[in-house]
Order: sequence, then C-alpha cells, then structure tokens
Amino acid sequence: MSRMLPELNPPERLLMGPGPSNVDPRILRAMATPVIGHLDPAFLGLMDETMGWLRQVYQTRNHHTVPISATGSAGIETMLVNLLEPGDDVVVGIIGYFGQRMADVAARTGANVRVIEAPLGESIPPERFEEELKRKPAKLVAMVHAETSTGAEQEVAAVAEIAHRYGALLAIDCVTSLGGMPVKIDEWDVDAAASCSQKCLGAPPGLSPVTFGPRAMEVVSGRKSRCQSWYLDLNLLFAYWGDGKANTRVFHHTGPITMIYAMREALRIVLEEGLEARFARHRKAHEAFVAGLEAMGLSLFTRGRRLPMLNVINIPEGIDDLTVRRRLLEENIEISGGFGPLAGRTWRVGLMGVNANPAPVMRLLSALETALVEQGYRCERGAAVAAARAVYKQ
Amino acid sequence: MSRMLPELNPPERLLMGPGPSNVDPRILRAMATPVIGHLDPAFLGLMDETMGWLRQVYQTRNHHTVPISATGSAGIETMLVNLLEPGDDVVVGIIGYFGQRMADVAARTGANVRVIEAPLGESIPPERFEEELKRKPAKLVAMVHAETSTGAEQEVAAVAEIAHRYGALLAIDCVTSLGGMPVKIDEWDVDAAASCSQKCLGAPPGLSPVTFGPRAMEVVSGRKSRCQSWYLDLNLLFAYWGDGKANTRVFHHTGPITMIYAMREALRIVLEEGLEARFARHRKAHEAFVAGLEAMGLSLFTRGRRLPMLNVINIPEGIDDLTVRRRLLEENIEISGGFGPLAGRTWRVGLMGVNANPAPVMRLLSALETALVEQGYRCERGAAVAAARAVYKQ
Repeated sequence: MSRMLPELNPPERLLMGPGPSNVDPRILRAMATPVIGHLDPAFLGLMDETMGWLRQVYQTRNHHTVPISATGSAGIETMLVNLLEPGDDVVVGIIGYFGQRMADVAARTGANVRVIEAPLGESIPPERFEEELKRKPAKLVAMVHAETSTGAEQEVAAVAEIAHRYGALLAIDCVTSLGGMPVKIDEWDVDAAASCSQKCLGAPPGLSPVTFGPRAMEVVSGRKSRCQSWYLDLNLLFAYWGDGKANTRVFHHTGPITMIYAMREALRIVLEEGLEARFARHRKAHEAFVAGLEAMGLSLFTRGRRLPMLNVINIPEGIDDLTVRRRLLEENIEISGGFGPLAGRTWRVGLMGVNANPAPVMRLLSALETALVEQGYRCERGAAVAAARAVYKQ
Repeated sequence: MSRMLPELNPPERLLMGPGPSNVDPRILRAMATPVIGHLDPAFLGLMDETMGWLRQVYQTRNHHTVPISATGSAGIETMLVNLLEPGDDVVVGIIGYFGQRMADVAARTGANVRVIEAPLGESIPPERFEEELKRKPAKLVAMVHAETSTGAEQEVAAVAEIAHRYGALLAIDCVTSLGGMPVKIDEWDVDAAASCSQKCLGAPPGLSPVTFGPRAMEVVSGRKSRCQSWYLDLNLLFAYWGDGKANTRVFHHTGPITMIYAMREALRIVLEEGLEARFARHRKAHEAFVAGLEAMGLSLFTRGRRLPMLNVINIPEGIDDLTVRRRLLEENIEISGGFGPLAGRTWRVGLMGVNANPAPVMRLLSALETALVEQGYRCERGAAVAAARAVYKQ
C-alpha cells in the first residue's frame, strides 16, 4: 500500500499571545538532533547540564531543579500532589484563572483548600495571607506569581516570609514570569516553583521546569501516603534525575529527549544573553508597546503591578474582539482573547522571548492599528509605531 | 554578559535497546518546523488529522483517540486514574515489570488491586482471568500486551471476551506493540489502550497515544468523584481535543506543538508504509536477528509468544553484561540490560521502526559477535550475519 498524505505545512505566525511564543531557530535546529537513549552516559551529562543551567535561571542552589516531562500545568500539579496529602490545609491565593486552577488541582489531592481572592486585575496584599494563617495554620500557601489571565504580578517575598513565620511552605506558579522577569527562588525564600518551556524561556511547549527547596523535599520524603501520581512522584523522579547524593540513575520513565535538547538550548540562549539583560529587554518591549497602545488611545486592564511580558488590553467600545483577532490572523499575527469574565472585553498580548524586540512590537502595533481603523476606530495613523520607536530611542 | 556554553553535540547512536529507537530524519525535520498556537485554526486541523491517523494505527473507530501530552507511562496512568475510583476492584495481569507498574499506579487511585501473575518469560492463560472474575467481579482488567521487560506477548482478544462476559472493562498497555505488530482495538474489543511515541511508531519520546471506546467513556463521564489528576482528566482533555459532538475547543493545557508535529509525521510514515507491510518488516527483522543469534549459539529468554520488536537474550555463561554493553557503546550501538531479576542475566534488543531493517540487524550482530569473541566466547566468525542474511534472501 502506498498512500499520499499531506505534508506538514503550518503557516508562519508571529505568536503574540500568552504563549507559545516564537521559538529561536537555534532551538528548532537543536530539536532536529538525532535522539540518544535516556540512560546513555552522554544523555546523563546533558541532564546534569540542564539542571545546572536551570538553577541559574531560577536563581537558586536547589539541587532538585529539573524539567518535568509534560507541560506547565503538569508542573503545577507536581507541586501540589507531592506537597499535599489528604486532610492537609492549603491556602491558595487567587487573582485570576490560573489561581483558580491551582485550587482545583489542590482539591483533587483531598486537601482542605482555603482561598484568598483579589478582584481581577489586582493582586493580593501580603497581609491578607497573614490574617488567614493567623486564623488557622496551613501546610502550604500556593499562588501564581504572574497571572496570565489578568496581567497582574503577585508579590512573592513578603508572602514567603509570612508563610514561613506561620509554619507553611510557599509554592508558586511562575509559568509566565520565568526567563522574562526576576524569579529569585533563594532570595525570596520560595520552597517550590513550576514554570513552562514555551513562554519567556522561548522553547516549544512540552516541559515544565520545577524547583524544590530543602524544606519542600523534606515534606516529600516524609510523606505518610504515597504520591497519588506515579508519573509526577518526585521520589521516583529524582531517583532518575539524581538525588544529589548517590551517583546512580534509576529508570523511572523515558525522558522526552528532544524536548530536553530544546530546553537545554533555550537555557543556553538565556544564559548567554544574561538574566539582567533579558529582563531589561522584556521591560523595554513592554514600555514601547504600552506607549504605542496609549498613542492609539488604548488602555491596559491591569490595575496592580503589571507584567512586562503579558499585556491585557481593554477592547474599546464598539470594537468586536473576534473580528480584530481574525483580521490579525490574516496577517499571520496571533494575539489572544480574554479569559472567563474578561472574554470579549480584553485582548492578551505576549511579549516573550524573541518577540520582546522592536520588530515584533512595531509589526503588531501597526497591524492592530489597521484592524481597528477598518472597524471605524479613530486614531492618528502611525502614532503608535512612532511612540514605541521613541521609547526604543531613549 | 556574554558567555560561551557548549553546543549540543550528542554522539550518533544506533538505538537497539527497548526504545527510544532511532528517529526517521523526516520526523526530525518536522520538529524543526516553526511553532504555531495551540488554538490556531491551522493547529486544530492538525489535531483532527492526528486523531484520524492514530485511529487507523490503532485499528479503531473510537472517536476518543489522542496523544496524551506526556510520555507512555503517563498514558498508562491516564487509563487507570480515569477508569478507577476509590474502592473499585481491578484485576491486573502481571507478566513482568510493566505489569507490576500498572498495579502500582492502580493502587494509587484507592482501588482494590488484585493481581494475576505468570512466571517471567511466559504469559497468562486467559482462563486464569476467568477464574479470578468468577471468584469476584471487577470493574476493570488491566494488563500489558507486549511486556518490554520479558519480551512476551499477552493474548488480548480472549481476555477481552472474558472481561466483558463478567462485566469488566479491559485496558491494555501497548507501549511496545503499537506500530510494530497488530493492535486491533475494535476487532479485539479492547476498551482502553495506551502506547508511546518512541518505539515502533518511530518518533522521539514525549507523547502517549491513547484510545478509549464507548464503554470506557461512559465510565469516565459517569464518575462519582473527579479524576484525581487534573492534567490527565479525560473530561477536560476531550473538551480541548474535541468530544466528537460540539464543534468547540475549550482550552485545557497548552499542547506540546512540536511533539504533535513529530507524532503526525510518524503516523504519516506508518500509514504510507501500510500497517501490514510494517508488521511484516518487524517480523522479518526479528526472524533474521534470531537466526543470527542462534548461529552464534545464543538463545532467547522468552518462552511464550515472542515479541518481534523486543528480543530478550540469555547472556551466555562467563560473559559479563556490562563489559559487552560498554564495548557496543564504543561502536555507538546501544542495547539494554535486563530488568529486575533479569539484570545481568539477559540483554534486551529492540528492532523498532527504522531499525527493523537489514542494515541495523547486521551491524548489531557483527558488533555483538566481536564483543563476545573478545571476551573469550567461541563461535564461528561471520556465521551470525550469514544466517541473518539468508533469512532476508528467502
């Protein structure tokens, strides 16, 4: 039998949504590298290197720092199913969809989930965690550092200090922040964190880098019940990735070799650029983009501390969400709609990795202006790009 | 800061272990394709195509046939955590390490796990499942179709008939069999199956193709408790991949785009070759390899129905496992050691995907002969390759 099936031929998009972002060609080339075995001595060397570089990006000395073999959501689940047992108390800070999701995942462990919420677009004042922990202790505080659904940043260091003062661990979702703004695991004294590969680290989706500090690992190794997930069981996982003591690697699952090649190359690019330079580049792209938006008469939804890499824009009166996004997609530009209650009211624009640069910012501003004007929106043509360019010239 | 970090430069191995196997260059090239968004209309089309082609490979009309966004082990976990609830009875057939692992994963759901075992190298006569189900009913029977640790095939169709007669579902692990030998989900009447990307489908590790039939999906949608895993919750997962009814895609997690490109290309290669031709090629490689082994005076460990793609070889008296494998690795050939009680006593050789072909078979036989002779093993030089070649000439 010989059949002709269509070639893979996806369009070339500029990915300005909340991730995946565009992938550096160096990383794509790395993925075309022939596969080796997951127990090959050469691969074990690549694993050690990947762990080491990931520690640098997480700004931590935590030995237990690895990419989980699944996407970012699985990294969040890894934190919760390993740190919680049935009956444990967990306080989840919710400032948007991804905080809600953390509460959902935590509830599936049989833990007693208590939530603290802030209005969409804001973040939670640290003292509210203190009030809640004073009222009743908890084993764990979990929250999102950079909330992808609202563009708000949640203060971490102060919450970590409070959590520890009340005997709780702190686990954070830094899916959107890692690689694009400071995530200082050791300085902030965070016990566990999980991220993803496809946002500011600039690799394709498929892996979730996580880090676990000594207090967290003590909880993991001292569990009364086994972790409910075999695949995400850190005790088994670190028998393969290395527990930092014995020099042995015990088979757990077959690592996703090619994705680890991609992660390694992504980390290499991040470290070659340097963390501070990379954060400054993301910050600059955000400032230029916002200057452009404002010149167009548009405003940001987020009221609290705004994320540089994820911009939530209010859709102006009389403009239809889907019409604009469809029009941009015709120009091969992807931006994203709002989440849940923000659907139809906001757009989400990511400036991540290779796209936190002048060319993508200008291309999007220009195309967005055209799409809006086509729908009868009134603004001075060219002002957005000029304003953004002025920021880059400063 | 500018730093030089080492380039990715792994050795070029011939992967003749139990997987990953070598990856067709077409698949590696597909992975270098620029990433698009997981909600891009163009990507939704690729998802539908991937589901359709996967159904053909699984020989099923099951709508609910998708690659899970994690490796094969997670696919096994997906079956068990979705089909079982606390207190349910499950009968697990164990003929090796991967059956034991199924029992381990099942126990973590809070189900009551009952096991049926066969000696290593054999498989379980179907009537033993009947005895067990007659003794006490169960909700699910779970077993490994192709046991990677022993090289034995477990009969499926007869067990499916028995399971259904006693009101149980049947879930199978076909991690090693799919794409290399018949896996007839509909004809055998299997309710759920999970496999991997990196063995006979020939893609890199990272995805787990699963299929769920109508009876299984009825159990999934009628659960009393929520699935313990958010990431592997089929009710959420099929809201994204499509439930076959509503024409909507609801965000769950960010799909591993590049791995799905790889899976799509791998399936395309499988279907272009044709399933029957592909199975015959794997069978022929096995026959040639075994002829070569026998000409060398070596024997297979497996006593029951032998898998074509996974050959478990008895290590001859006086030969050291690690010395031989290290010697082969110097020639850039990877084979694998035995598992658990078979460690040091057996080697495992995979003939999967592109490696189920004359050139890899001859190269391995020749290198193995050399490594054995270097250790004082006595055999007629060149006889193995000649015997294998004779099989290919038939």
